[in-house]
Amino acid sequence: MKKYEHKTQYYETDQMGIIHHSNYIRWFEEARIDMLEQLELGYAEMEASGIMIPVLGVSCEYKKMTRFGETVEISAKLTSFTGLRLTIEYEVLEKQSGELRCVGETRHCFVDQEGKPLNLKKKFPNIYDLLLDAL
Amino acid sequence: MKKYEHKTQYYETDQMGIIHHSNYIRWFEEARIDMLEQLELGYAEMEASGIMIPVLGVSCEYKKMTRFGETVEISAKLTSFTGLRLTIEYEVLEKQSGELRCVGETRHCFVDQEGKPLNLKKKFPNIYDLLLDAL
Amino acid sequence: MKKYEHKTQYYETDQMGIIHHSNYIRWFEEARIDMLEQLELGYAEMEASGIMIPVLGVSCEYKKMTRFGETVEISAKLTSFTGLRLTIEYEVLEKQSGELRCVGETRHCFVDQEGKPLNLKKKFPNIYDLLLDAL
Amino acid sequence: MKKYEHKTQYYETDQMGIIHHSNYIRWFEEARIDMLEQLELGYAEMEASGIMIPVLGVSCEYKKMTRFGETVEISAKLTSFTGLRLTIEYEVLEKQSGELRCVGETRHCFVDQEGKPLNLKKKFPNIYDLLLDAL
Repeated sequence: MKKYEHKTQYYETDQMGIIHHSNYIRWFEEARIDMLEQLELGYAEMEASGIMIPVLGVSCEYKKMTRFGETVEISAKLTSFTGLRLTIEYEVLEKQSGELRCVGETRHCFVDQEGKPLNLKKKFPNIYDLLLDAL
Repeated sequence: MKKYEHKTQYYETDQMGIIHHSNYIRWFEEARIDMLEQLELGYAEMEASGIMIPVLGVSCEYKKMTRFGETVEISAKLTSFTGLRLTIEYEVLEKQSGELRCVGETRHCFVDQEGKPLNLKKKFPNIYDLLLDAL
Repeated sequence: MKKYEHKTQYYETDQMGIIHHSNYIRWFEEARIDMLEQLELGYAEMEASGIMIPVLGVSCEYKKMTRFGETVEISAKLTSFTGLRLTIEYEVLEKQSGELRCVGETRHCFVDQEGKPLNLKKKFPNIYDLLLDAL
Repeated sequence: MKKYEHKTQYYETDQMGIIHHSNYIRWFEEARIDMLEQLELGYAEMEASGIMIPVLGVSCEYKKMTRFGETVEISAKLTSFTGLRLTIEYEVLEKQSGELRCVGETRHCFVDQEGKPLNLKKKFPNIYDLLLDAL
């Protein structure tokens, strides 16, 4: 699995002179979607076929501040998958130094377009298998 | 028409120590939706009945920087409406001092849920009349 | 302590038709700053006198989706304070129905403008006392 | 000058199912900073040496909607530079189709860290020359 890279943007800074902490949650999403694409699970295509993957919970521990101009490498790793729910863990490293900036986790379920729980194994067995293999 | 108030937020600042310029475009949206609500045109309800009002263009002239902790008053004024398109002009003032911070404009059209142009006069005459009156 | 109100904005939605989950982290910040102001601890003034309160960690559990047009009430409660660190817990309720949408927590430390840890009790005893009382 | 690429993100969408219009203003900033870097004018370094380049005005004309999953190519072109002010024009194309999505412009001045106007020719002649050459 290739690490995802994000170049920090000026509009992501705040007046403390650092990247605002809310952006890491957005970077997790970028890395998560990239990870799914690397598994050949395009997010846009999944939504088009009626699979939504809302966030049930998120946690983030900030280790060191990140600044404008730095590039971060984000690894996203599937750590749990039951067919009904999944958990992904993240590590954010500054690219040049390899310094750890943040670790985090998101928890998700699968729902259809009406927001009803989706049993992936039953309805989308090929996606179920791909995610099980990735575990 | 009551002016719309927005309290500036910490996450809206950037490392220049001021509100990032992209947020004014979002404040225009807040003030625009508030103006429509004051005309009894709830935006959520309009979307639910199939009217979308995408942005065709936006312009913004920054007069003075705005800082975290300040509250701004935004006036939104309908300056043109043809049934097919509308133009809204904005003025952003710092509340306490009355100082002008920014002026701007957005241009819109009306489309249905498939993205096709919508003739408001024909399809939604009551909304057409309300907007014409507001002009 | 008065609950903080936030009216959801169109630009906070995503294509799932709900408020994007990253915004709750920003709402926590809004409610936290409001709570501090209610304790007569203006955030802008604290920063001006050299106290920064960076986020060490954040967690958020989403209970129900929130939609554009809804207003949420956010309670922020100081649950731990040591003079070096503090923890705040949040509850986000939809205003009209009282329905619980999200619970969360942020953890913070105090640093000076160079980013060095700040002993609040020693350097800013009046602020230390105010926070201890609020606990 | 190499075109700047931006992959659209899920958190940039809104409930109309398209990229929210305010993000194009942020993409202009990404492309502008990339253009300056291609001219060997690192933005972080310029700020560190005391040059701020605030936005005086922005305009944006939306031609076609952009959707999640698409990648856009943004060209940023310096069209006016006087030593006191500069203007940059932007074109946003969808990468695969080459379809024009948006054109825009930003206008800037140069200020020092106290926010006072900066005469680039006098204070930073090498940067002045680089920008004049780029014109």
